Amino acid sequence: MAYFNEIPKVKYEGRHSDNPYAFKFYNPEEKIGGKSMEEILRFGVAYWHTFTGDGGDPFGAGTAIRPWDHLKGMDLAKARVDAAFEFFNKIDAPFFCFHDVDIAPEGDTLRESNQNVDTIVDMMEDYMKDSKTKLLWNTANMFTNPRWTHGAGTSSNADVYAYAAAKVKKGLEVGKRLGSENYVFWGGREGYESLLNTDTKLEQDNLAKLYHMAIDYSKEIGFDAQFLIEPKPKEPTTHQYDFDVATATAFLQKYDLADHFKFNIEANHATLAGHSFEHELRVARENNMLGSVDANQGDLLLGWDTDEFPTDLYSASLAMYEILKNGGLGRGGLNFDAKVRRGSFETEDLFHAHIAGMDAFAIGLRVAQKMIDDNFFEGIADDRYKTFKSDIGQKIVSGKTSLAELENHAIDLKDDDIEIRSGQVEKIKAKMNQYLLNI
Amino acid sequence: MAYFNEIPKVKYEGRHSDNPYAFKFYNPEEKIGGKSMEEILRFGVAYWHTFTGDGGDPFGAGTAIRPWDHLKGMDLAKARVDAAFEFFNKIDAPFFCFHDVDIAPEGDTLRESNQNVDTIVDMMEDYMKDSKTKLLWNTANMFTNPRWTHGAGTSSNADVYAYAAAKVKKGLEVGKRLGSENYVFWGGREGYESLLNTDTKLEQDNLAKLYHMAIDYSKEIGFDAQFLIEPKPKEPTTHQYDFDVATATAFLQKYDLADHFKFNIEANHATLAGHSFEHELRVARENNMLGSVDANQGDLLLGWDTDEFPTDLYSASLAMYEILKNGGLGRGGLNFDAKVRRGSFETEDLFHAHIAGMDAFAIGLRVAQKMIDDNFFEGIADDRYKTFKSDIGQKIVSGKTSLAELENHAIDLKDDDIEIRSGQVEKIKAKMNQYLLNI
Amino acid sequence: MAYFNEIPKVKYEGRHSDNPYAFKFYNPEEKIGGKSMEEILRFGVAYWHTFTGDGGDPFGAGTAIRPWDHLKGMDLAKARVDAAFEFFNKIDAPFFCFHDVDIAPEGDTLRESNQNVDTIVDMMEDYMKDSKTKLLWNTANMFTNPRWTHGAGTSSNADVYAYAAAKVKKGLEVGKRLGSENYVFWGGREGYESLLNTDTKLEQDNLAKLYHMAIDYSKEIGFDAQFLIEPKPKEPTTHQYDFDVATATAFLQKYDLADHFKFNIEANHATLAGHSFEHELRVARENNMLGSVDANQGDLLLGWDTDEFPTDLYSASLAMYEILKNGGLGRGGLNFDAKVRRGSFETEDLFHAHIAGMDAFAIGLRVAQKMIDDNFFEGIADDRYKTFKSDIGQKIVSGKTSLAELENHAIDLKDDDIEIRSGQVEKIKAKMNQYLLNI
Amino acid sequence: MAYFNEIPKVKYEGRHSDNPYAFKFYNPEEKIGGKSMEEILRFGVAYWHTFTGDGGDPFGAGTAIRPWDHLKGMDLAKARVDAAFEFFNKIDAPFFCFHDVDIAPEGDTLRESNQNVDTIVDMMEDYMKDSKTKLLWNTANMFTNPRWTHGAGTSSNADVYAYAAAKVKKGLEVGKRLGSENYVFWGGREGYESLLNTDTKLEQDNLAKLYHMAIDYSKEIGFDAQFLIEPKPKEPTTHQYDFDVATATAFLQKYDLADHFKFNIEANHATLAGHSFEHELRVARENNMLGSVDANQGDLLLGWDTDEFPTDLYSASLAMYEILKNGGLGRGGLNFDAKVRRGSFETEDLFHAHIAGMDAFAIGLRVAQKMIDDNFFEGIADDRYKTFKSDIGQKIVSGKTSLAELENHAIDLKDDDIEIRSGQVEKIKAKMNQYLLNI
Ligand SMILES: [Co+2]
Ligand SMILES: [Co+2]
Ligand SMILES: [Co+2]
Ligand SMILES: [Co+2]
Ligand SMILES: [Co+2]
Ligand SMILES: [Co+2]
Ligand SMILES: [Co+2]
Ligand SMILES: [Co+2]
Repeated sequence: MAYFNEIPKVKYEGRHSDNPYAFKFYNPEEKIGGKSMEEILRFGVAYWHTFTGDGGDPFGAGTAIRPWDHLKGMDLAKARVDAAFEFFNKIDAPFFCFHDVDIAPEGDTLRESNQNVDTIVDMMEDYMKDSKTKLLWNTANMFTNPRWTHGAGTSSNADVYAYAAAKVKKGLEVGKRLGSENYVFWGGREGYESLLNTDTKLEQDNLAKLYHMAIDYSKEIGFDAQFLIEPKPKEPTTHQYDFDVATATAFLQKYDLADHFKFNIEANHATLAGHSFEHELRVARENNMLGSVDANQGDLLLGWDTDEFPTDLYSASLAMYEILKNGGLGRGGLNFDAKVRRGSFETEDLFHAHIAGMDAFAIGLRVAQKMIDDNFFEGIADDRYKTFKSDIGQKIVSGKTSLAELENHAIDLKDDDIEIRSGQVEKIKAKMNQYLLNI
Repeated sequence: MAYFNEIPKVKYEGRHSDNPYAFKFYNPEEKIGGKSMEEILRFGVAYWHTFTGDGGDPFGAGTAIRPWDHLKGMDLAKARVDAAFEFFNKIDAPFFCFHDVDIAPEGDTLRESNQNVDTIVDMMEDYMKDSKTKLLWNTANMFTNPRWTHGAGTSSNADVYAYAAAKVKKGLEVGKRLGSENYVFWGGREGYESLLNTDTKLEQDNLAKLYHMAIDYSKEIGFDAQFLIEPKPKEPTTHQYDFDVATATAFLQKYDLADHFKFNIEANHATLAGHSFEHELRVARENNMLGSVDANQGDLLLGWDTDEFPTDLYSASLAMYEILKNGGLGRGGLNFDAKVRRGSFETEDLFHAHIAGMDAFAIGLRVAQKMIDDNFFEGIADDRYKTFKSDIGQKIVSGKTSLAELENHAIDLKDDDIEIRSGQVEKIKAKMNQYLLNI
Repeated sequence: MAYFNEIPKVKYEGRHSDNPYAFKFYNPEEKIGGKSMEEILRFGVAYWHTFTGDGGDPFGAGTAIRPWDHLKGMDLAKARVDAAFEFFNKIDAPFFCFHDVDIAPEGDTLRESNQNVDTIVDMMEDYMKDSKTKLLWNTANMFTNPRWTHGAGTSSNADVYAYAAAKVKKGLEVGKRLGSENYVFWGGREGYESLLNTDTKLEQDNLAKLYHMAIDYSKEIGFDAQFLIEPKPKEPTTHQYDFDVATATAFLQKYDLADHFKFNIEANHATLAGHSFEHELRVARENNMLGSVDANQGDLLLGWDTDEFPTDLYSASLAMYEILKNGGLGRGGLNFDAKVRRGSFETEDLFHAHIAGMDAFAIGLRVAQKMIDDNFFEGIADDRYKTFKSDIGQKIVSGKTSLAELENHAIDLKDDDIEIRSGQVEKIKAKMNQYLLNI
Repeated sequence: MAYFNEIPKVKYEGRHSDNPYAFKFYNPEEKIGGKSMEEILRFGVAYWHTFTGDGGDPFGAGTAIRPWDHLKGMDLAKARVDAAFEFFNKIDAPFFCFHDVDIAPEGDTLRESNQNVDTIVDMMEDYMKDSKTKLLWNTANMFTNPRWTHGAGTSSNADVYAYAAAKVKKGLEVGKRLGSENYVFWGGREGYESLLNTDTKLEQDNLAKLYHMAIDYSKEIGFDAQFLIEPKPKEPTTHQYDFDVATATAFLQKYDLADHFKFNIEANHATLAGHSFEHELRVARENNMLGSVDANQGDLLLGWDTDEFPTDLYSASLAMYEILKNGGLGRGGLNFDAKVRRGSFETEDLFHAHIAGMDAFAIGLRVAQKMIDDNFFEGIADDRYKTFKSDIGQKIVSGKTSLAELENHAIDLKDDDIEIRSGQVEKIKAKMNQYLLNI
């Protein structure tokens, strides 16, 4: 059955197209810096927001009108698979992502839930034989069910922890079956509400043990996906352990896990943590831990995770700059962890939203590649740091000096002797606008 | 010369005293949990806010009226030393803290600046022979002078870096002379304004090298103070490298510095980073890196560092809870990195403010000790985590299980079989109020 | 049927009680400043959070375990009424509040919904004959159902607007039947998500018309309740029209509605708008528009409406200070628009939470009354403004001067001639702590 | 004497120019919608940030290197006038703005200060005879000097109030002499730090009286400038009375001042208040109170007023959309209340920054005019609200209905009968990007 009959396959028509069902900037085959846009951008559709989400919010019920609304249970789950692969094809998505509970309803026990998952995974496997769309990552949802109230891998209850471990085991098996590129851990309930009732050390020790067991098991079954941590500072939990990339890096280092993980960086989580999106990408990149991206955006005047489709071209350009500097995303991709607004409840909004996001990152890619080709910002940086390329600067960089030698260098310097130059931030911002408008 | 003639020596008079120049809760000799309040709290006076600050803000000139206002240059610097030791005595402060530029004016070269510092340090050394007030920590100010615009240890200019290194060298020597307990690094300009013009990797590599040189030099001169990093997420710099305790921990681990540093945690910096004060203390404590505290408070409805004197009794109690759980502050202390409001410009406000802060932490200490004595919150936590003390829970904690065994444990569990209990946060908060009002 | 058999009636036992089901500070009959605590505080229980809410959040399903969970539809609705009046009695609540959809399920049409409401209102009427608990306010929920997606009184659709008007009509009738003291308007969906698709003028014109019709109709039926606006800046809507008290005041003035409305001020809404709770109370008070209070609290490190039970004693004391200065709340009260945390899912937490909140405001009342009795802060203020009591100051206050006369007064003043004094904020905060700990 | 000899006169060279001293988008004579860009945009240079500011921040001294740094006192003030008019000419600015203290140093008394002001105003008058640059607005600085610590028009001291009144009087006279288009009131110290020591009613009553006297005096002297309030929520004061446009509107209405004032809306003040820039413009526009604009931008991840030069093209486009919908700015303009970053300390950065801002608003103007010409967003809105154009919708809009009639309309409606449509926010954002990239 077809769910989107009235929507044509979305194609590139160029920047002046008035066709709402066309890409204006995303041209999959077009080469940018030697690779096709499709290869570089590796877009993924988020199963939860696109096929499972209903537009509900804390003050209102679901609003989404979907052609599968009349179905229930496993029938609904199956219809969504049909719809998903039709959607992937129409929007031309090379990847998708899901949590276990997105694809199949939970049963009374994990055994029953897993059977439901297996049925759907069978269906997906079939579809994937003929589809270009691959699995970017899967994961286990360990935050929605009431049992996770006090955490999953950091639960205060051992049965809950065991349940979480069993879900991760199944998730790894599913990932292996479907050839997933990555496996993601997002700890929405891993954190605390009050320090007074929380043994933060025990909880984090346990979480680290869960990660070690997951590494062992994935080796055991020959599942070679990249493991990813997705940091978020808060929401739903008052304070989450994986606050940001730096915090999670300290955790991974402490528990001897750093070699086994990279990061899945979400734009809206970055801003909730007080960082720009590109900051989080940079921190991960410099530690060789930039794995994948949840491409969305927040509203900085709002204090919660709005998971909007990304349309801010500054953010997309600066993100693509970091990604290109990283040599691309490797096995990762740009997953739209983004939902249409509650007021955008019609089915066609799903298409408008994905087109908006894909075009935004296509623009970002074009801008970033041009900036890199021109060496404009690198040129500024090279000039700024030039004193580190010779004399005392070179000694500093190579670690061959001491406080005494440096004191000797500086003790009689007058400030007029020191040539510091403007950081030229205003000029840089103007140039950035020029790059944006001239692509 | 005496500067505070009209102010009496401040003494403990008990909770009902109406004397504004008396402590109502801080009773230095009183034993709490076996130690005197003075020994536990280790209060420090911040030289910059109390003797150098003038109450200026970005929109207004200094307002402070001080009895040394008529002086200039080294005369002013010397008068401040006299005033400081008179103040320490009257407020009964066991410690003080300073940056180099707080105590002596800068000259045209570092050589000249250092000579000025030496003159003042001589004076301080004299005073300290007869004073009970010791140096909690000193540091080099590497953020006020224009030369630090683009950073100090992360400057884009090698001469500036050398200048910073020379200042650190002098700071270590001054610390040694005055018997300082700690040496602090706060990187107010170590960060970036725009990623596009910043080589964040080079800058942080260089900063790590500076720290290594400082460690080497302090060993060389036999200065055995504890090194402290003071994290702050932003302000003055748009994004600072030492965002919070977790971020700085990742940095220290990466550069093999973690064994040489602890943290100086400022309450207002914690909240600017999106954390509670007690969160930062907890994170440091669990890593054995809680070194010292900048005891102040922010206004969470304002987005900048207000450095208010601490009066919030919740915050003081929860902070003291973490500190007592840490076994105290060791060589650290509670330094009032706090300034009287611009509108509190009279000299006597300095006394009111310190009394307010010292009483607040004395209350916090009393509350925290009572909470620990009663085992109330620990009792709640013990009960919450009891499933980790036997059976599968014990296996989890001891690392002797696997995903397969845990799956076996969980696969047929029904949610009704899992006994999770309320986190009881409302009861805990009510009890906290009862503890506070009944001390 | 009794739902809370294991919970005793909650009574005052004094500040040292260890009984979790006792008030430690709220003593209903105790006179404070000439009136009983019950008369002054006028506590209300919020039907939605206490009997209808399930603990769900945007990332998780409901967790609440309630003795009426096995019921459905009107049976459930009726059971909740039984439970509610049992709860009111046990917690000794003089008031309650509800939205229409809290008390009865919606039907396929408003006619059917209204019939359900009538059935429940009949039951309530019966209960209220023998109960001391009265209705503080009721209202119509115009934000949960998908039809309100784009607003109710500001909907972009005329049918939806008519539906909203009809719901208000019914609400007024219900209020009259149950003798409600007030009727509340909270515009959760009255606002915009994007200015580009919103006719903000038409929407607000329409809203004002709805209010005028409501005034007319309440006169028509002889319902003399106080109308209340409850401001909130955002959430669920990106930007809400009733941002804060000042914004809503401008709206009411513009549309000639100011004489017909007062405000229902929610603490958590105040802080989301960037104000303290007491600020919003003050603004309303000075305009004679302080009507009622939604007594809860937020977490200032989180950016959404957490609706926590109020336990912060500073906030409660400063709020009660404004309320006492207002001569009390008149027909308003302190409604606990507060929910137990998702992790506090046991039935008994409902009692712990209400006790926490009622004790907090009882403490606040005691502190505020003592502060007023002592004239401490008023004394400070009197002294600050004393120059306005004579000479040029008196002329200014009485409006009998001019720029020319004031220039003449000031033109040759030297700053030393002007006696401004410290604002003494630190002393004030210390005194506030002393008041709190000595009640 | 010429201060900017090395900088050429800045001219329009088009979007591909690599000349840093050229406009790429601002083409003063080019007609947009029938008027020249210069006429519409009415750019103003802020004297304080461009000629007086030194780049200091709360943690650091001034960094700016300016060719007049060697001068002092009135010599410095005069040099700045020379530099200003040279700058206005080179950057082709039609307007400038100043506070009294920006242009001349203060004396020991206001009489002396005024004499200094007069000397400079004489010079300006001379320059303005031959310059196209006119005075957009002037104002009196009543926030920098310590005497304003507790406010100016809301001071707790009558002498200070008189001083403020006298400064306003002089400001009005100066405005008249220089033919100023507007006179601005920004109340940086008009607010409170603690409600406990503040008589908020007296203070605001006094402020309103000051405004009435200013109106009277300007009539008296025949100064017909537009009076403007510039709202700001906080900083430097903890809570400012003129929080935002809505708050100030309520104030003006209450004190019968609304007919005499419009607003000067600053982008960064809007975001500090929790609003978008365009929100504040819309609110003012709908009340016919959009007077002038302080065109800058903030950093939403920082909590203070950064006053950056505006470069965000979304913000500029949406602002220009409101301004065009307003029929332009009338006597107002786009004043760059913006400062180069502390690290952008070279003189040439002043040019780069103004070019960046002027180009940004030129782009915004082009985008907004195109959006309006195409009727794209209006079309969406027209469609959304179409049910208000007939039948019951028309009755609602014309105020000719009642709750009873509306109930009758709605009581048997099923939700399927109600046709609400998607708000299409994602499509709108995608279209906005297309407009931006295709100008
Ligand atoms: Co995500
Ligand atoms: Co998100
Ligand atoms: Co500090
Ligand atoms: Co600070
Ligand atoms: Co409420
Ligand atoms: Co609320
Ligand atoms: Co401004
Ligand atoms: Co500003």
